[in-house]
Amino acid sequence: MKLATYKDGSRDGQLVVVSRDLASAHYATGIASRLQQVLDDWGFLAPQLQDLSVSLHHGRARHAFPFDPAQCMAPLPRACHWASAPAWLHTLESPWLARGEAVPPSALAAPALVRGAADALAGPHDAIAVASEALGADFGAALAVVTGDVPQGATAEQALDGVRLVLLANETVLRSVQAAEAQAGVPPLQSRARTAFAPVAVTLDELGDAWQGGRPHLTVQTHWNGRKVGLAESGPEMAFHFGELIAHAARTRPLAAGSIVGAGPVGNRDRSRGYATIAEKRLEETRQDGAARTGWLRFGDTVRIEAKGRDGQPVFGAIEQELVPLHAPD
Amino acid sequence: MKLATYKDGSRDGQLVVVSRDLASAHYATGIASRLQQVLDDWGFLAPQLQDLSVSLHHGRARHAFPFDPAQCMAPLPRACHWASAPAWLHTLESPWLARGEAVPPSALAAPALVRGAADALAGPHDAIAVASEALGADFGAALAVVTGDVPQGATAEQALDGVRLVLLANETVLRSVQAAEAQAGVPPLQSRARTAFAPVAVTLDELGDAWQGGRPHLTVQTHWNGRKVGLAESGPEMAFHFGELIAHAARTRPLAAGSIVGAGPVGNRDRSRGYATIAEKRLEETRQDGAARTGWLRFGDTVRIEAKGRDGQPVFGAIEQELVPLHAPD
Repeated sequence: MKLATYKDGSRDGQLVVVSRDLASAHYATGIASRLQQVLDDWGFLAPQLQDLSVSLHHGRARHAFPFDPAQCMAPLPRACHWASAPAWLHTLESPWLARGEAVPPSALAAPALVRGAADALAGPHDAIAVASEALGADFGAALAVVTGDVPQGATAEQALDGVRLVLLANETVLRSVQAAEAQAGVPPLQSRARTAFAPVAVTLDELGDAWQGGRPHLTVQTHWNGRKVGLAESGPEMAFHFGELIAHAARTRPLAAGSIVGAGPVGNRDRSRGYATIAEKRLEETRQDGAARTGWLRFGDTVRIEAKGRDGQPVFGAIEQELVPLHAPD
Repeated sequence: MKLATYKDGSRDGQLVVVSRDLASAHYATGIASRLQQVLDDWGFLAPQLQDLSVSLHHGRARHAFPFDPAQCMAPLPRACHWASAPAWLHTLESPWLARGEAVPPSALAAPALVRGAADALAGPHDAIAVASEALGADFGAALAVVTGDVPQGATAEQALDGVRLVLLANETVLRSVQAAEAQAGVPPLQSRARTAFAPVAVTLDELGDAWQGGRPHLTVQTHWNGRKVGLAESGPEMAFHFGELIAHAARTRPLAAGSIVGAGPVGNRDRSRGYATIAEKRLEETRQDGAARTGWLRFGDTVRIEAKGRDGQPVFGAIEQELVPLHAPD
């Protein structure tokens, strides 16, 4: 099934079930009002949502309405845990390759998970507000999962059983801040702006055989100012699958239901497939010409991120964000 | 007022108002069931809880019962944001001093905030479960605050207005894992075990003049296996006050109500005041004798952390945890 969260003025929004073709939706009222409730009690509530989803599919849901992605918050607007790590070979290798160095085994030994703030995850159409273009805002077309309860010390296989939903994300990173943090030797924090999510979260059965051993096989498209800049295949070159990422996060503590684990920007080694972050583009320019030409996002720039299944249909709906200047607090 | 969360089998527990002397309590039923609800709507709900607190204080609350810290979860059992940074001069300086080096200005330039997982914060009497003693479990007697909504780009002064509650914490760190993460150059993640919190969260008025410009002036006591090992004054040597820590976390994104911002282990330069982490003790041993003698926590070891006000009375109740072996998941 496909789930989304409609804006209603509250911090957690209203849960809706969305049809497979993203055309219609139905409030989940009577089953659960918030997605976190469903995650807290998945075994009991998910089957009821699934029944509603089937009714919607067959045109039997009595109060269905046209689905409007512009009304959506992030599917899980606030979460109790959010961590992500670069998981695609290209992302892991390219910093070394750009410097003309061999990729050391340590680069692929374990995922470099970083925890983020999940208090106000951005909706698909929320603007990216930054104080200055000089912060170097960059997009990041990424995939993530929402987990159920995962026990401390779970293996990667056990962790895979904990996957409840798959998400499409735009992990905005402030590259100038990131460089300053690296320089200062402090962990990434201010460089992580609000992550945005596509309108719809999907269960694994929606992906069918596009979900293979913790790896989603999808085509992730990135448009920058209307121009297609990336068209990456997420399946074949995922160095760490989601079970491995979750198990890494759960090695020394359990994960509670509603934890979001992200796999970072989806990239391919084949450079003709474009890029999922401006940082990648700049690394490639550096490798080829010795210097980066492409600048970071400017005010007014738009980013559109979408993922399609094997049938060419959008799975999650699109993320469409614009970079805007922050109004300083009074 | 003082607030706590009683276990009720749910993930968020039941909110109770606790008397100033920690002797009696009253369910907040009818006002709010969960602390996060109160934080979401502080202006409306906090005054109602304050009225209940006054009734409790005057013995007029009709369904008061004896307060039992053993029934407590963390005051906020799951939060949408948790970040902490070492904030006391001693903690910031001692790694350099132990190596006989001068403290560089960069060590005190900005707080090194790290985000943690807040999906299942530990209660005051919850055991610390680790797979092996070899992970090097260490305690950390720390203070933290819970914020309301803090706008992106808030100044330290503006951020101080966002402080809602003060907490006492035990930030458990797995030192062998921390060393391995530092060696691998990845941010701290698996080294951060579950943080535990004292039974009671307090509003700033409870601290009175012990809250000065974002610095709590309390005496933080640490006992290890029943022996007092630390007695630190939290007021005078706090290099970054809570407004500075919150503003740092909010520089590039807003913080939503219910964010927890921690200030790390409370330590003093005066070594006769003992230690708030075993790591400090070992650094001091290394400085004096060239090698650390004291080992990390062993199974069965207990840690007790408490903070007292100027009247010598406990403010938050005590954290009392034991290190136990983890039972691997089936």
